[in-house]
Amino acid sequence: MIKMVLIGTGNVANHLYKAFEATKDVSIIQVFGRSNKSLKSFSKNTETCSSISELKDADVYIIAISDDAITSFTQKLPFKNRLVVHTSGTVAMNVLSEKNRKGVFYPLQTFTKDREISFSQIPICIESEEASDLQILHNIGKAISKKVVEINSEERKKLHVSAVIVNNFVNHLYYIGSDLLEKNNLSFDLLKPLIFETALKLESHEPKEAQTGPAKRNDKKTIENHLNQLNNNAFKELYIQLTKSIIDSHGEKL
Amino acid sequence: MIKMVLIGTGNVANHLYKAFEATKDVSIIQVFGRSNKSLKSFSKNTETCSSISELKDADVYIIAISDDAITSFTQKLPFKNRLVVHTSGTVAMNVLSEKNRKGVFYPLQTFTKDREISFSQIPICIESEEASDLQILHNIGKAISKKVVEINSEERKKLHVSAVIVNNFVNHLYYIGSDLLEKNNLSFDLLKPLIFETALKLESHEPKEAQTGPAKRNDKKTIENHLNQLNNNAFKELYIQLTKSIIDSHGEKL
Repeated sequence: MIKMVLIGTGNVANHLYKAFEATKDVSIIQVFGRSNKSLKSFSKNTETCSSISELKDADVYIIAISDDAITSFTQKLPFKNRLVVHTSGTVAMNVLSEKNRKGVFYPLQTFTKDREISFSQIPICIESEEASDLQILHNIGKAISKKVVEINSEERKKLHVSAVIVNNFVNHLYYIGSDLLEKNNLSFDLLKPLIFETALKLESHEPKEAQTGPAKRNDKKTIENHLNQLNNNAFKELYIQLTKSIIDSHGEKL
Repeated sequence: MIKMVLIGTGNVANHLYKAFEATKDVSIIQVFGRSNKSLKSFSKNTETCSSISELKDADVYIIAISDDAITSFTQKLPFKNRLVVHTSGTVAMNVLSEKNRKGVFYPLQTFTKDREISFSQIPICIESEEASDLQILHNIGKAISKKVVEINSEERKKLHVSAVIVNNFVNHLYYIGSDLLEKNNLSFDLLKPLIFETALKLESHEPKEAQTGPAKRNDKKTIENHLNQLNNNAFKELYIQLTKSIIDSHGEKL
């Protein structure tokens, strides 16, 4: 049984807590948070604390707090030579304090409050300074997910940019679609089956071969018609840029 | 029993054929195609023809051919005053020949060869000149889908732009993500759970409230780091445009 202390009470901390609570191989022996209020949902089943001097001895400390606070938090830790890992996609491993053994435990997923999520398919990206620590991270990763992968800090940067593109940017395109429909009294529900199929098609098709549409065909007439439908100049500009990028990516010229 | 003739042998025609073949209320009495080769997969179970003079009498003719060919095809039809509908998102109803009763039967979905799709959740957007024809289109729509909606040609234009945005443009962002990972020897599979969750989150959250990420937070440090990760100038330009659009849409200023 691996003894874990969870640092943080936000979205990621909440989801990790629920996932580890359901496993046999990992025991969360303590949750640390800045206030009793934030710790309330954890304190029913687990010991909690809001002072770093009260942190218990554990095999691993998982830090799930905001990116900017990670370094300073690890510098304040009152112990040394223990395994301390963060869960961020953007923060390099080496910003963790030198006092303790460093590592990263990054679940590559978007976590939403009040939305249940199954960890079993979520890639857990792990990194550590010492090989023996990698084994510990591998074991706790395997306790909640089928996909545990070793990813170094440089690779994690690329992953995070890609994640922003396929999550944040894609969601913004959903918003642009919903905005256009709403302004014309049409329900966004009409687009949802198309949205789901566009994503699920990746199970069987690479994005490059799945590409269709007026930009792929360089169908200037339809592109022109579409631009006339868009009243918002910023969205019109995005339409032009994305169309150009699709044409360029598929080897045809404007 | 509604007697239907299906015009076309491509992707949409294939998917409609399979969907209607499985219903009790609609009978495809004939499939029309340009060549015997293209009709081969239909001819086992259904009468086929490749000459318009051989078209049989039917309650409705469903045209699933390329957009550019629709008008001229309907002008060549050797009969009049029958219900002739197209299945296109971009073509107005009134481009159909005046000789016959006009209508549209547009299934709002992306259809891929060799990919099974369930029609039951696909919105079927119908339009007709005559009210009695709308009832026929409603009935054949209901035979394959739970969502049949009346959408006029102007509304359909808006729907189609939105569909291009959430399907073609989103898929292009998937491609950009996959390209970035591939160039760094990372598997695109790592991003798939995130992609699926980003889409499925729309079941419970509006796109506007689901928006997260560095652009939403106007986190200049992370945005700068991400731009340094992108070597492709076209993708870098898209990153900047999308980031700007997210910031503008969420009411914060650069």
